[in-house]
Amino acid sequence: MAKNKNQVHFLPLGGSGEIGMNLNAYSYQDKWLLVDMGVTFNDRLGVEILMPNPQYLVERKDKVCGLLLTHGHEDHIGAIPYLWERFKCPIYATPFTAELVRAKMQDQQIDIDPFLHEVPLEGQVNIGPFSIKLITLTHSVPEPNGVLIEAGGTKIFHTGDWKFDPNPLIGNPAEETELKAIGDAGVDAMVCDSTNVFCEGDSGSEQEVEANLSSLIGSYKKNAVFVTCFASNLARLQTVALAAKKHGRHVVLIGRGFGRINEIARKLGYLKDVPPFLMASGAKKYGRDHLLYLCSGSQGEHRAALSRISSDSHPDVKMSPGDVVIFSSRIIPGNEKSIISLKNKITKQGVKIIYGKNDDIHVSGHPSRNDLVKMYKWIRPKTLIPVHGELIHMVEQGRLAKREGVPNIVVPENGTLIEINGENSRIISEVPSGRLALDGNKLLSLTHTTFKERMRLGTEGAVSIVIVLKDDNQLAAQPEIIPHGLLVDGDLKKECASEINYAIESLSLMERNDVSLVSDKVRQAVQRAIRAELSKKPVIMTHIVKI
Amino acid sequence: MAKNKNQVHFLPLGGSGEIGMNLNAYSYQDKWLLVDMGVTFNDRLGVEILMPNPQYLVERKDKVCGLLLTHGHEDHIGAIPYLWERFKCPIYATPFTAELVRAKMQDQQIDIDPFLHEVPLEGQVNIGPFSIKLITLTHSVPEPNGVLIEAGGTKIFHTGDWKFDPNPLIGNPAEETELKAIGDAGVDAMVCDSTNVFCEGDSGSEQEVEANLSSLIGSYKKNAVFVTCFASNLARLQTVALAAKKHGRHVVLIGRGFGRINEIARKLGYLKDVPPFLMASGAKKYGRDHLLYLCSGSQGEHRAALSRISSDSHPDVKMSPGDVVIFSSRIIPGNEKSIISLKNKITKQGVKIIYGKNDDIHVSGHPSRNDLVKMYKWIRPKTLIPVHGELIHMVEQGRLAKREGVPNIVVPENGTLIEINGENSRIISEVPSGRLALDGNKLLSLTHTTFKERMRLGTEGAVSIVIVLKDDNQLAAQPEIIPHGLLVDGDLKKECASEINYAIESLSLMERNDVSLVSDKVRQAVQRAIRAELSKKPVIMTHIVKI
Repeated sequence: MAKNKNQVHFLPLGGSGEIGMNLNAYSYQDKWLLVDMGVTFNDRLGVEILMPNPQYLVERKDKVCGLLLTHGHEDHIGAIPYLWERFKCPIYATPFTAELVRAKMQDQQIDIDPFLHEVPLEGQVNIGPFSIKLITLTHSVPEPNGVLIEAGGTKIFHTGDWKFDPNPLIGNPAEETELKAIGDAGVDAMVCDSTNVFCEGDSGSEQEVEANLSSLIGSYKKNAVFVTCFASNLARLQTVALAAKKHGRHVVLIGRGFGRINEIARKLGYLKDVPPFLMASGAKKYGRDHLLYLCSGSQGEHRAALSRISSDSHPDVKMSPGDVVIFSSRIIPGNEKSIISLKNKITKQGVKIIYGKNDDIHVSGHPSRNDLVKMYKWIRPKTLIPVHGELIHMVEQGRLAKREGVPNIVVPENGTLIEINGENSRIISEVPSGRLALDGNKLLSLTHTTFKERMRLGTEGAVSIVIVLKDDNQLAAQPEIIPHGLLVDGDLKKECASEINYAIESLSLMERNDVSLVSDKVRQAVQRAIRAELSKKPVIMTHIVKI
Repeated sequence: MAKNKNQVHFLPLGGSGEIGMNLNAYSYQDKWLLVDMGVTFNDRLGVEILMPNPQYLVERKDKVCGLLLTHGHEDHIGAIPYLWERFKCPIYATPFTAELVRAKMQDQQIDIDPFLHEVPLEGQVNIGPFSIKLITLTHSVPEPNGVLIEAGGTKIFHTGDWKFDPNPLIGNPAEETELKAIGDAGVDAMVCDSTNVFCEGDSGSEQEVEANLSSLIGSYKKNAVFVTCFASNLARLQTVALAAKKHGRHVVLIGRGFGRINEIARKLGYLKDVPPFLMASGAKKYGRDHLLYLCSGSQGEHRAALSRISSDSHPDVKMSPGDVVIFSSRIIPGNEKSIISLKNKITKQGVKIIYGKNDDIHVSGHPSRNDLVKMYKWIRPKTLIPVHGELIHMVEQGRLAKREGVPNIVVPENGTLIEINGENSRIISEVPSGRLALDGNKLLSLTHTTFKERMRLGTEGAVSIVIVLKDDNQLAAQPEIIPHGLLVDGDLKKECASEINYAIESLSLMERNDVSLVSDKVRQAVQRAIRAELSKKPVIMTHIVKI
């Protein structure tokens, strides 16, 4: 269907059909507004991060007016160091998020300041034809913004990541009056976080965590206390720090992420009542019963602080029997095995583990069903577009919204172009989308043949072979066979060599001029021999050398 | 510490420190009794199953009197086709388990009958110096046996996998009187399942599942109903079948595992009241609203029935919008991502998913805390040895048992040799243990260098190189470079070639006689060029050909 440039369109290129790597775009009169540019973490095929393939938008980069950031989590800003240079567009963010972006870009030696525009909380800004108003919501990071986007009379409420928290400890709670007023003025479409749609009830408040975590920390009088949480959860850092202070413990920050967040937070005036944190070296003068180690690595990441400490390979910090480790975090799906392995290592040290149940020492930053229902009632969108979820989450949010009276639901996938038109909003076409993998220092499409090849290398192994043919195409020597990642013993090597010789001898001298034919025959012969002996199908790399 | 052969010893070689691949052994007077021989499923490095390395016991195979099987789950019998031939010892099992073993061994063309001894439920048997009494417990498979092992006056209660279920639907509930009598007679050590030690309360009964599942199935009047559960859970199969019958649906079995279990069950007189199942071909004459498809693949396994049906690649069965899929199963830790991906595919078909919460349509087969406490009270062991768990589970069971008054706790790891001596039971030494991986058709130690090599191939890719040197050690041609699983473009190939030439030219003609020196220099040169350009560290395979 053709795109009517006088309508607003919504195009997710990341984050719809997955939790991670958010990249959303809006267009009006041939101009584009990008919202967020995030990554997803990965642990296969030597690739640690994935991000949306922005090619469709890059081809329209002259029409891109700006990149607006809702908040500072990696799944919303993590791809900027890799993708922003393809756009070189202005970036708009509130101060905390802007500071995180600045630090990231400094790591890459990119001077982002000329492009980075700070917008105050609750601020307004025009980006091309889009008039933007930020609405402070609550989440698990400072300065989470919902965005009211208006263009050509069409109004969209883009929630970003959010929850309702009456007492978020850092920042202000979302204002009912403000959200209701937005609803009163009419909202054509709400683009909304689906992460926790399967969670019943309310999301729970950071304040309840504060009470529980503080009394828990206070209950340990001896030995050292370790706490792990997400570094970006500044309210949690503050809670842990104040609880430690109350119970006579100094807080030692362990992990690079914590250091950076602490630095940025203090620079911007957060953590005012929190005494300076110690670094590991500064902690040595205190007894272990006067220390609380705040560590990165709640997801069992091998190289993070908690994993290294528990396997006795951290240079500065040790665990001792009688210590306790408090996990003030959730399990990100997919990390279950790594976390069990981390817990085993901690247990082996004779250290007790406290893992919260329900909402006692951790609450999520995403909306449970009650929060969603309340938001629908306040905003009263004509269309709901669920994003930030696997398909199951988005479809379920659609069902919930339908039941709650939202007239129209459009469930997108990455690449679906949606025309926003009140209750008649709908998908009008599909544009190219996909994932880029950061492989070493290069960005490659995840569908690139390199990854298929690598998958096979990693499961089946490889065999490299040289065949030397004389001028007259007679074999000059025995083939040389080098296996790797495959158990080929002397007998099997001989068997392969004899199969290769037989395969070549069954070609006429004339046919042997065709290098690719010889290669194929050699490959087939070796595949056959190896399959018969090992039941494996290695990659065969053949060199045909003519002398 | 030296082993006193007049004491009984316990040696776990698999299943202690992990959930999966159980292999336990008891020794007395230099004779060994093996209990269970299972596998663990795996999805990395081209290896689908892992099993315990039995080498320590294989070296003593003349002293092995027999292999006793507690029940028929893969983590208890799955390694028999691969490891039994190293022992060729008698196998003892109750009829259902024996039949499963027979089928497995037939697949491998091994005639196991001469070695397979059926023991009736509640039966007794002497295996070498060990006097064995089976005690019927309850679990999620027919015929789960606890084992009372007596040798030289020492008594051990080896629970196998169990729970208390007052109404297991298939088989008899565990008998309080019998277990108390065992306790009254004195038990030196109890070797006990730790899987669900973090679950509060009771385990829940199969009978409650029956009621919920039946009314759930009855609530769908239109379209097709799909149910997925573990094939070995015969009680669940029966529940689903009877509910289907009651609500006018024919049950179609989809998945090889279901077929085998059904066949064995009926042969042994189970499923008497259940009408014959249909195969996909026989279902065509019925309307979809009169069918219930019972499918394998609850864990999101790619090749299993449910995954294939939901991705429209099953030859006989399709899904249609309005159908429903009921998951009557739990998530095995590590399978979260595969299950989400499966659910997304089902959702994309417009099909509703029912995933049980708490214990409504699935109960676990392992003991929750209340079950464990009750068992301690009845058996009153002098020592508790928790097994069948990650370290965190085993240590937690130790804590629970201690609190409940069990005098002595010994937490093993695979390879710990434990002297059983009432309250003084303790670890006396450690013997070699490890894991074997089934790679193709070969069993290799998981620590074998092949897997390290394959890991690197799968994350970094490979480059194969041929250097041709003339008689006088001058380069005869440009090096040939074949990359695989690595994005090496023409420029980088040229760069590598020029680095190789430079490296070789910096060696004297004399030095070039040393093939391994030339190889090393070539490898280093290519590594350098590729690291600089791609930040990758591929495997470099070099051939030096002299002509």
